[in-house]
Amino acid sequence: MPEILKVGLLGYGTIGSGVIKMLTSPEFDLADRIKLVKVADTDLVRERAVKIDPALLTDDTESVVNDPDIDVIVELIGGVGVARKYVEMALDAGKDVVTANKYMIALHGDDLHERAVRSGARLLFEASVAGGVPIIQIIREQLACDRVHSINAILNGTCNYILTRMEQVPGMDREQAVSEAQQKGFAEADPTLDVSGMDTAQKLCILVRKAFRTPVLPDQIDLQGITGISNVDVQSALELGYRIKLVAHSHRVNGNLEIWVGPALITKSGSLAQVSNEFNAVAINTEAHGEQLFTGKGAGMMPTAGAVVGDLFTLLNHDKVPSLLSEPRLNLPVVDRNDVRCRYFARFMVKDQPGVIAAVSSELASRGISIASVVQHENTVDPERGVPLVVITYETTVGAMTEAVAAIDRHDIMLQPAHTIRIMDSL
Amino acid sequence: MPEILKVGLLGYGTIGSGVIKMLTSPEFDLADRIKLVKVADTDLVRERAVKIDPALLTDDTESVVNDPDIDVIVELIGGVGVARKYVEMALDAGKDVVTANKYMIALHGDDLHERAVRSGARLLFEASVAGGVPIIQIIREQLACDRVHSINAILNGTCNYILTRMEQVPGMDREQAVSEAQQKGFAEADPTLDVSGMDTAQKLCILVRKAFRTPVLPDQIDLQGITGISNVDVQSALELGYRIKLVAHSHRVNGNLEIWVGPALITKSGSLAQVSNEFNAVAINTEAHGEQLFTGKGAGMMPTAGAVVGDLFTLLNHDKVPSLLSEPRLNLPVVDRNDVRCRYFARFMVKDQPGVIAAVSSELASRGISIASVVQHENTVDPERGVPLVVITYETTVGAMTEAVAAIDRHDIMLQPAHTIRIMDSL
Repeated sequence: MPEILKVGLLGYGTIGSGVIKMLTSPEFDLADRIKLVKVADTDLVRERAVKIDPALLTDDTESVVNDPDIDVIVELIGGVGVARKYVEMALDAGKDVVTANKYMIALHGDDLHERAVRSGARLLFEASVAGGVPIIQIIREQLACDRVHSINAILNGTCNYILTRMEQVPGMDREQAVSEAQQKGFAEADPTLDVSGMDTAQKLCILVRKAFRTPVLPDQIDLQGITGISNVDVQSALELGYRIKLVAHSHRVNGNLEIWVGPALITKSGSLAQVSNEFNAVAINTEAHGEQLFTGKGAGMMPTAGAVVGDLFTLLNHDKVPSLLSEPRLNLPVVDRNDVRCRYFARFMVKDQPGVIAAVSSELASRGISIASVVQHENTVDPERGVPLVVITYETTVGAMTEAVAAIDRHDIMLQPAHTIRIMDSL
Repeated sequence: MPEILKVGLLGYGTIGSGVIKMLTSPEFDLADRIKLVKVADTDLVRERAVKIDPALLTDDTESVVNDPDIDVIVELIGGVGVARKYVEMALDAGKDVVTANKYMIALHGDDLHERAVRSGARLLFEASVAGGVPIIQIIREQLACDRVHSINAILNGTCNYILTRMEQVPGMDREQAVSEAQQKGFAEADPTLDVSGMDTAQKLCILVRKAFRTPVLPDQIDLQGITGISNVDVQSALELGYRIKLVAHSHRVNGNLEIWVGPALITKSGSLAQVSNEFNAVAINTEAHGEQLFTGKGAGMMPTAGAVVGDLFTLLNHDKVPSLLSEPRLNLPVVDRNDVRCRYFARFMVKDQPGVIAAVSSELASRGISIASVVQHENTVDPERGVPLVVITYETTVGAMTEAVAAIDRHDIMLQPAHTIRIMDSL
């Protein structure tokens, strides 16, 4: 092991600035163990919050990757274009790589790992999932001897902030909450990747790959974002004793893997329901350790930089790091989305007229779906716009519920398509 | 690194049985990487829940420690008598040691670590604090590059179970809750070490030693157990929007270390307030990662065994393990207990007569302590037994509050000594 680790950083953006701060400021006192040798970025002129010695900065990324004086490449470019090219180049040359790139690891993690094994390099990516929570390390090390039963997680701080605000402010619609999140720096200018659930799905793939030793690609996951969630949903759920969270779910059931990403109602007293604002959380249930919950900031400059620098410390201290493929794959078969079982919250915007509840309940009943409770309030303000009829079901399958909702949507009592959300009582 | 780790286990009790289960059952599939070679216990006849091959069992502990075919000794005897003797013997001989012994590590961790360094052995003790939460590893690895500001934790499942039950069942006194905990296996026959807070203090010393690189012994900690907590306290706190938890607190303040163990009122919506029953939790605030919360089962056969086996896995995979003394000591000076600042909840059992509130409030005021709120209910059942007067103060020092309470206790309006509990608004 080297006494001092020499680092080349690719990408002088927000996270890169945080890494530079940690490696150079006396407060963290790391300079004599981890040395920042070069920083590459295509933009050399933009003002940044964290300054560096101009002699360290270059726009020739390839020269940094090929610099024989550099031990480890920190990749913070993002995406799977040039980022992937440079990571492959570094690994092929036997250089260690630390990355925060969830998209690249979710899609190409196995291939990159194989390159690393061939050249004797090491690849770490703690910052790719829930920056402020060292969940990759926990799964890789302390839980590696245990048998994971399930992972349920809140992995997107943007969505969690939006849902928290819609709950705190009755009437606040999603667009308002998104723009507030953007003002506070909790959402990108284009929040599509977050609100669609795709960001969450990529992170779940990384956790599942390691915890269940099963490769799953993001597009194989039954995926629902928060774009269908209205303030009426959030407030009705609250009235029924639930909070709505964007949940990443994976569960080993009879040797198969149940996996999905979508909004879910969680009992107010449940542990994931306590996770608010921009925080992330991962609940893991294992055979020996039992129930565990890990909570922290999901994103932001310093938490993510902390995860990157934590990985550098691991490289400095350990020759060998158990990685994605260190154990034989289990390759659990993924359960068909229609066969997944859960309870449902369903909101129907219906005309305020006789026979509405009868129509809805008979469509559900004919598919074997039992109703646990119903809430319908009078609309005294504007009856023309209809009333929300909220139904909670007992456990059924996704397939049966999808069919029932399609049938209900065909009734002329419906003023807009029904919206269904899973209920996770056990979280 | 050996391809297979050969283990000698000292102590065939509850945790030992869990370790044997993990190392031998096909469910965990560890037998071809971690091999159980010998198990030593002074009692060879007692029936255990987990059976082993009688050929593995011996009452000659020293022969196991000296067995050249054994790479690592797992010490699950407990205490600092023979356990320490065998651990020293193993380390001096260059054998790695994994232990769950919080008492031994809190008192003699530095000395044992020095022995390990001298002989080239490694010493791990994940199971000594919050078995189901890999907190030692998190501090040792991912947070090692970060700067820890504070640790606030619930580290004793027995006390947390007792306080949870006293909250759930109005009128249930501590003795009833203890005996219920004993029936459920959450408390020892003699719960003194738990309810006195000493068990929590030992665990806090271990966390503080690593996170703040400062050696503190359990008897240097300002320590209050839960033996003074009555159901009236728990229910009055609840009425004011708080839960009472036994908190282990450490906080870096202006280069000094504030450290104490005691019951504290935590806002109902605070993250540590959500941790109920036998669960443990550690809240860490650091410069880069920010606020993190780790929750899991604190004790019990399988969670503790999981932590022991996780350490074995670490020994199998890493040549070098950063340990207690791997960094230079910081030796932060400990803040004098009387100078620690906090808000207070104070319960005075007073005679139901005029002038009571005036007497209490003037003693507080004369020491600069401001009252934030007061609750006193009429005692319609038995006025002779007095009424509980509950006062919440603004921030003051422990010293000022201790003085004020001593003065109040001298008034003849008091029917029993006052009871004060810290308030931690930030948890």
